[in-house]
Amino acid sequence: MTLETLKADVAREFGTPAVVIDLDVVERNIARVQSLCDAAGVANRPHIKTHKSPVIAAMQRDAGARGITCQKIGEAEVMAAAGLDDILIAYNILGEEKIGRLGALLARTKITVAADNAVVVAGLPGAAAIAGRDLDVVVECDTGRKRAGVVTPAEAIALARDITARPGLSFAGFMLYPPDGALTDSQAFLDEAIAGVLEAGLPAPRIVSTGGTPNAFRLGGLHGTTEHRPGTYVFNDRMMLANGAARPEDCALSVFATVVSRAESWRGVLDSGSKTLTADTGGGLDGYGLILEHPDARIASFSEEHGILDLRACPNPPSIGDVVRIIPNHVCVVVNMVDRLVTVRGDRIVGELPVAARGRLT
Amino acid sequence: MTLETLKADVAREFGTPAVVIDLDVVERNIARVQSLCDAAGVANRPHIKTHKSPVIAAMQRDAGARGITCQKIGEAEVMAAAGLDDILIAYNILGEEKIGRLGALLARTKITVAADNAVVVAGLPGAAAIAGRDLDVVVECDTGRKRAGVVTPAEAIALARDITARPGLSFAGFMLYPPDGALTDSQAFLDEAIAGVLEAGLPAPRIVSTGGTPNAFRLGGLHGTTEHRPGTYVFNDRMMLANGAARPEDCALSVFATVVSRAESWRGVLDSGSKTLTADTGGGLDGYGLILEHPDARIASFSEEHGILDLRACPNPPSIGDVVRIIPNHVCVVVNMVDRLVTVRGDRIVGELPVAARGRLT
Repeated sequence: MTLETLKADVAREFGTPAVVIDLDVVERNIARVQSLCDAAGVANRPHIKTHKSPVIAAMQRDAGARGITCQKIGEAEVMAAAGLDDILIAYNILGEEKIGRLGALLARTKITVAADNAVVVAGLPGAAAIAGRDLDVVVECDTGRKRAGVVTPAEAIALARDITARPGLSFAGFMLYPPDGALTDSQAFLDEAIAGVLEAGLPAPRIVSTGGTPNAFRLGGLHGTTEHRPGTYVFNDRMMLANGAARPEDCALSVFATVVSRAESWRGVLDSGSKTLTADTGGGLDGYGLILEHPDARIASFSEEHGILDLRACPNPPSIGDVVRIIPNHVCVVVNMVDRLVTVRGDRIVGELPVAARGRLT
Repeated sequence: MTLETLKADVAREFGTPAVVIDLDVVERNIARVQSLCDAAGVANRPHIKTHKSPVIAAMQRDAGARGITCQKIGEAEVMAAAGLDDILIAYNILGEEKIGRLGALLARTKITVAADNAVVVAGLPGAAAIAGRDLDVVVECDTGRKRAGVVTPAEAIALARDITARPGLSFAGFMLYPPDGALTDSQAFLDEAIAGVLEAGLPAPRIVSTGGTPNAFRLGGLHGTTEHRPGTYVFNDRMMLANGAARPEDCALSVFATVVSRAESWRGVLDSGSKTLTADTGGGLDGYGLILEHPDARIASFSEEHGILDLRACPNPPSIGDVVRIIPNHVCVVVNMVDRLVTVRGDRIVGELPVAARGRLT
């Protein structure tokens, strides 16, 4: 078997575009980040948003992960139904429909949720009441990423107090996603929040949860961290190559695509457009993916099912009918486009893996 | 019933984010573009890429469409299985796996395919042989959009000759997607290609197929057009608002989302990120969607499940827990994210509609 025969086999068996993962690389990635967590004495709670597969979540658990992280209740429902336990839903859960489902989930699985405001906290006792057991809540803190999260330690402390005062809720600690760059601001925020909570006589934080694949490589840098939520590392992508968190051989996922047109000498068309590779720029990368066989070919623009190649810098451009492999800018959103991943080991097809939690938007 | 009760009903029954279509508006949109086609004496062959639903395709057919357009064989398979007939697959079909499926499809359904190069044409007789009947082929021409398509009339004529010479293939005409702006270049290309085909003694083109929702409003402008492939008009979106092809009341689809955080006075977070609204900029629009209740709130950036609101220009910003409706930049890619659309008529929930051909990448 060679790479060329693998490409021909995938094209013949599944057609292109095909979203392909190499399980050998997946296993190496899982082991690598687990050992980083182990070495730092930090629990690993990988985020399943990247793969949305209970099979891969179980591989992460079996390699030593303490639990998993989900972003949506629907994802947690799929994971819990497949036997995954100890789930952090890293999101503000709000509204009657979601509180009902959260309660049903909590009744049968260990669940922790995040909250960054009092409106969300006020709704959570409803889930605990449905489940008949306490719900652990971590306070989401924004230490510079400008996403969700309280933006001052004072707000974090106030929310911890609010959680503690509510029936059925247990203040469990803090969740943050340290931004790139120095950890100084995150450390100062965290130290002040922890000190404030202790000073107020509230329960000592049991959890300080950090996020992000790049941050897995500097565990220990933020004192007090108890667990980490890496996601992308399981497959990696062009963003991880760009920020140094992955080498090319760590990229487990590639999109197998066919060149279907070469309208002009300097242009080409792939059968993969924005409905496969997505319009995600990976935080400002040039083009929409790295073509492994033709790194100088630029995926310059998209239609929904066309990837337009700019071949002007490409010394040896691909021909019509060629199958190429593309490392996408952002792997998590690409996995989200498909119902199944094709699995391989090296040059050999293994089978298919359902993306079981895809489409669980709520 | 009011809009506020509808929002509460959708949130309670389906949770948010929910992708919602108003069937009253869908029906109006279908009738409107059908009457444009009828008035111009041009057959309507709507592109199902926007809705991926055989139910809506049947509504288009029943309103007078001659057939449908698909972009992928998998989409055509779903449509044919649901009883849709006379399908144009507007794409270069290439490779053994796809030729086999195309042949199986052709055996039971009237199929036309597009081709823009000789490699693709050389493979197509295989499908005709499997089906035991001729396959109609249109030559895709690029008159300025820089996507797929031959770029000169001479190439178009040569490809028509090639198609005619192949066993089992029938040269059926030309397919193009006239770019915005004057139709002069498209007309000159088309005239030269048709004259060349006739001069060469090849079969007279039976089909001249044009594409695009905005182009539906200038049918008749390109002399010789026999059929049109509008897609987005069935739902419309922020791109169609921007280019004048739709008014706000023509937008049938909106994403119902909940404000889950208001971290700072000038910021907010929606429960809809790039995995719902997609990172599609709609060709350079500002922000990632129009919030109907707060048109001055800018959806400034995304995480996968967070839409980050910039509220600095918003006089009356939304509160945590508010449900808002968002017109997405590009509706076709948003529909592609979900397995089901919620259907309403005015302020009343009707049910759900499966996006049956979603995920058919091949």
